[in-house]
Formats: sequence, structure tokens, C-alpha cells
Amino acid sequence: MIVVVAANPALDVTYAVDALKPGTSHRVRTVTQRAGGKGVNVARVLSGLGHSTVVVGLAGGVTGHQLRAELDAEHLRHRFVPLVGETRRTVTVVAGGDATVFNEPGPVVDGVAWDALVEGVARALGGGATGLVCSGSLPPGAPAGSYAALVRLARDQRIPVVVDAEGMPLLAAARAGADLVKPNAAELAATTGVASHIQAAQVLRGAGAGSVAVSLGADGMLAVTGQGAWRVRLPRRLAGNPTGAGDAAAAAFVAGMASGQAWVDMLRHAVALSAAAVLAPVAGSVDVVAYHGLLPDVHVEEIDAAHPDR
Amino acid sequence: MIVVVAANPALDVTYAVDALKPGTSHRVRTVTQRAGGKGVNVARVLSGLGHSTVVVGLAGGVTGHQLRAELDAEHLRHRFVPLVGETRRTVTVVAGGDATVFNEPGPVVDGVAWDALVEGVARALGGGATGLVCSGSLPPGAPAGSYAALVRLARDQRIPVVVDAEGMPLLAAARAGADLVKPNAAELAATTGVASHIQAAQVLRGAGAGSVAVSLGADGMLAVTGQGAWRVRLPRRLAGNPTGAGDAAAAAFVAGMASGQAWVDMLRHAVALSAAAVLAPVAGSVDVVAYHGLLPDVHVEEIDAAHPDR
Repeated sequence: MIVVVAANPALDVTYAVDALKPGTSHRVRTVTQRAGGKGVNVARVLSGLGHSTVVVGLAGGVTGHQLRAELDAEHLRHRFVPLVGETRRTVTVVAGGDATVFNEPGPVVDGVAWDALVEGVARALGGGATGLVCSGSLPPGAPAGSYAALVRLARDQRIPVVVDAEGMPLLAAARAGADLVKPNAAELAATTGVASHIQAAQVLRGAGAGSVAVSLGADGMLAVTGQGAWRVRLPRRLAGNPTGAGDAAAAAFVAGMASGQAWVDMLRHAVALSAAAVLAPVAGSVDVVAYHGLLPDVHVEEIDAAHPDR
Repeated sequence: MIVVVAANPALDVTYAVDALKPGTSHRVRTVTQRAGGKGVNVARVLSGLGHSTVVVGLAGGVTGHQLRAELDAEHLRHRFVPLVGETRRTVTVVAGGDATVFNEPGPVVDGVAWDALVEGVARALGGGATGLVCSGSLPPGAPAGSYAALVRLARDQRIPVVVDAEGMPLLAAARAGADLVKPNAAELAATTGVASHIQAAQVLRGAGAGSVAVSLGADGMLAVTGQGAWRVRLPRRLAGNPTGAGDAAAAAFVAGMASGQAWVDMLRHAVALSAAAVLAPVAGSVDVVAYHGLLPDVHVEEIDAAHPDR
């Protein structure tokens, strides 16, 4: 079972309108909603691939109830610590092919709630977990070391842990010895202040991260690990919705680490699964048929991370 | 006590963002919410002026619960018929001075729910009501004659009834003998197909409406009644948020009719109260101090509705 942390989950609401005209009133044609946030998206991808998962997170208010109901409807197992505040919503306004997104900040989390979440994660890890994923921004009020504390819990039990975050929470997770940190290129640069992807990845490995995988959007992925470094990509760019591509990659990594997959295979799966998320019609989903079809096309090139330009 | 029908109420949510850029993601700085929809706004204005009111409406789902809680917090009395669907939300994105509004359609109402609403209105009218307001669009599924049925209920008990709507529901309410119908200029033209405000108002009076008041935005109001016709306006245009100005006017009319006020006084109050709604910082509220200050400035001019251009 893979434990997925959803510290700041959301109810993702989508409004279809004819055209978005700022400063005017719009009749919303259709309203759809489902559970979201990066942790929930990772769990959904894992579950879709047949992995047993449990979402451990924080949820409050009527939106928290709606979130639980949506997860129940999708048969995604969850254990949410009740929160006094109201779980956030995101509103995506879709007009033609364009998506305009409004992200509510989410409720402020106090120490008591966070301690309860840590306890929930510890209990889930103790029940025979094979992997842990901490994905997404921390909620307002959570200290920057919050993911690091969860990383230490997993490491104490030799359970592989993947962290997809940015800034101080990512750096602290690296220092705590996360097996894999998986920022995108912008997050990596913002976290380390280093422009070169490889050098920035080395900074995070130097801090304590076992491995670093950097998603490069349509350019695929770069990984720097203890066993080698690789550039991985598809031969052609894909058009679609990139939301959720990073979550699909995080799912591939934790599943691969949980089953002891070799790095080259894990990277191939991560890039194919990301691309299949881009091709899926709904953000945060994966086109499983496309995933299997893309897998043989993924190009993996080993590089010399100490001298990347040779 | 004035009975206010809220057939399609809403939870009005406001998002403050730094700037609205279509096709991008936005961090919402603050989220505020309150009960809304035209009926609720009319009740809020009446209550703010010291009138006893009860909102009778349809509400469902978790948003219906939130709506009730918001009304309780404002001490606005309400009796909602439970609905199977989910009460609608509106999302207003405020960036700088600009407001961009997204209106969810609201739940589909079946005959059983509508019958229960009619019964609720009948019960409220029977408890010593002095006025009835039917304001806003009908929910999806409600037949066009829905307001007309409520008008007949009130007329049977000689309780004055004001209807603020458009299209077939407004025309049917006029035919049922509503004491006052109060469309805005665009709604009046759309309902009658007649461009001249006075001629269009005469069409609705000819259909059966006792009186017709047409809100003309910054140009004030035109009223055609059995006792005469008037143009009413403030000497200067006011800058502000016009949302809720029509609801303030409806509140002034029903309160005036409930207390047997003369037309000239009622119109003066309606125009001052509308203007005070434009000046209020929050859409759907009224600046009561501004209202009393504006009252002496309202200009009332009697016109010859049969020969308006003389």
C-alpha cells in the first residue's frame, strides 16, 4: 500500500462558459466537480494503475465533506484529519480551449491539526506501507519542516519517500534524506537559486536527497541519482493539458521505488505516464491506453552528471 | 410582515485576485461569501430598513445548508423547502475595480418542490403578511406561470404583490394582476417587444398589471400607474456598483405598498434607495445614511402617459 499525503487538498470545480470576458457576467453552462490537489491526483493515478493506496490528509467544513464524498465515489481510500477551517476549492473556467484557474488559499492549519496528520501518516506507514508521497504546497500555517518530519518517519521504517514541492519545504525534505525529490525546472531553480538543472540537482543531492528528478515539461525529464544520471524524453512534443503531468510522474516514481524497479525503467514509466496525463481530456487523469502505447517510444540517454556537457 | 420569494437563491462568493488574466492560474487572495440572489437581497434591504420579513424559497445540498447558515448569521428569517439538487453559487472575481461574474444555473426544480414552495408562500401570507415580492429568474424546471400562481394567492387575500422578472414569467404575472411589475429597461423591451418604455409599460398594464415601474439605471425610473405616470431621477449620476439597485427599488415599492404610501413618495424612496445601493461598497447592500441624504434630491416629474412627448 502506498501512502499519499494530501495536506492541502481541494474540491476542483470546472465552469464551462461560452467565452470569458473580464468585467462582465457569465452564464455558467455546466458545473462539474471532483476531488483534487496534487496528493489526490497522485493517488488517483496510482489507483488507476492497480496500486493499493490511502490518502492521508487534512479536510474541513462542508467542502471537506464534499471532498470525502467525491473520493468515496471514486473508491479512493482516505483518512482525513478534521480541520476547523473550510477545505479550499479551485474554480477552472473553461471557454473554448482556454482554461482560467482560480486557486483558493486553503484553511490555516495549526500545530494540533498537523500533529494529528503526522500521527495519521505514522499509523498508515506502520500498516505495511511500501511507499510514501508528499506532493503539493503546504497549507497556510504549516511550518516549512513539515514534509521533512514525514520523510524521517518513512526513513525510520525504510519505506521509500518521494517529495514533490518547492522552496524551503523541498529543501528541508532533501536535508531529511528524501529518497527522491521531484520539482519541475522552475521550482528547482527557485529552491536552489542555481540556473543549471544538473548543478541545481547536485545541490539537492548534496543537501541529503537520495535522487533528484526534474520535470522539464515537453522536454521530458532529467534525473540525477546515486546510480547515474539520465535525460529522458519522447521523440515528439504532445499537445494537451499539462496539469497533473507532474503528479503522474510522482506516481510512477513511488510505484517504481516501492517495487524496486531499476532507474532506467522507472524514468521510462514516469515520462510515458506524464505524457499520458497531458493527453487525457480531464486534468489530473491519465490515458492508460496512451501510457502503454507511449512506453516503447521513450528515449533514455545516460549522461555524465559531473561533466554534463561532454 | 413582508414575504419575499427566493425561488433560485445563491451563495455569492467573491474572489479577490491581483489581476485577471484569461488562460492563466490565479492565486485567490481572499474568499468572502454571503447569501444572495435577488429575493435574498430584497429581504436584506427590507430588514435593514426595519421591516419584518420572511424569505420563502427553495434550497438544497451543502450549499443550501451554507445559505441557511449565512441567513441565520444575518438574522434574516427564512423558510426553505428542501430540494434534491444543489443550490447554486455565483463566483465574482474582483481585480482592481473590475468585477467578473460567473453564475451557476441552479438546480432543476420539479413539480413537487414547486408545489411545496407555493404551500409555504400561502402559509406565510396567511400569517398576517402585508406584502409579497417575487424577484429574480425562475429556477430551471419551474413553469413560466409560477410567479402568476403566487400573484393570485396574494390577490385572493388582498395583499399587494411586486414582481421583478422578465419574459414569460413577468408577462404571466402581469396577466394574473400583479399590483406592480418592475422590470429594467432591457427586460421590459425583451418581454414586450416594444422599444418605447411608456408604450411597453402600457402593454403590461393592458395585460393586467396594476402599475409598471421601469428602472433606467443612472437615468432613474419611469412609472406608469392607475393614478398617473412619472419620471423620477436624481440630478446627478452616481458612480458605484449597480448590482442590487433593482432589488433596493423592489424593497421600497413593496414596503410603500404595504403601508399605503402615495405613488410620488414611493417613487422618491425607490430611486433614493436604488442610488444608495449603487453607493454601497458591497453589491446587494444599501448605504442607509446615503439613502436618507439622497431622498430630498430626488426629482419627480409627472408626465402624460397617453401623450408622453407633450
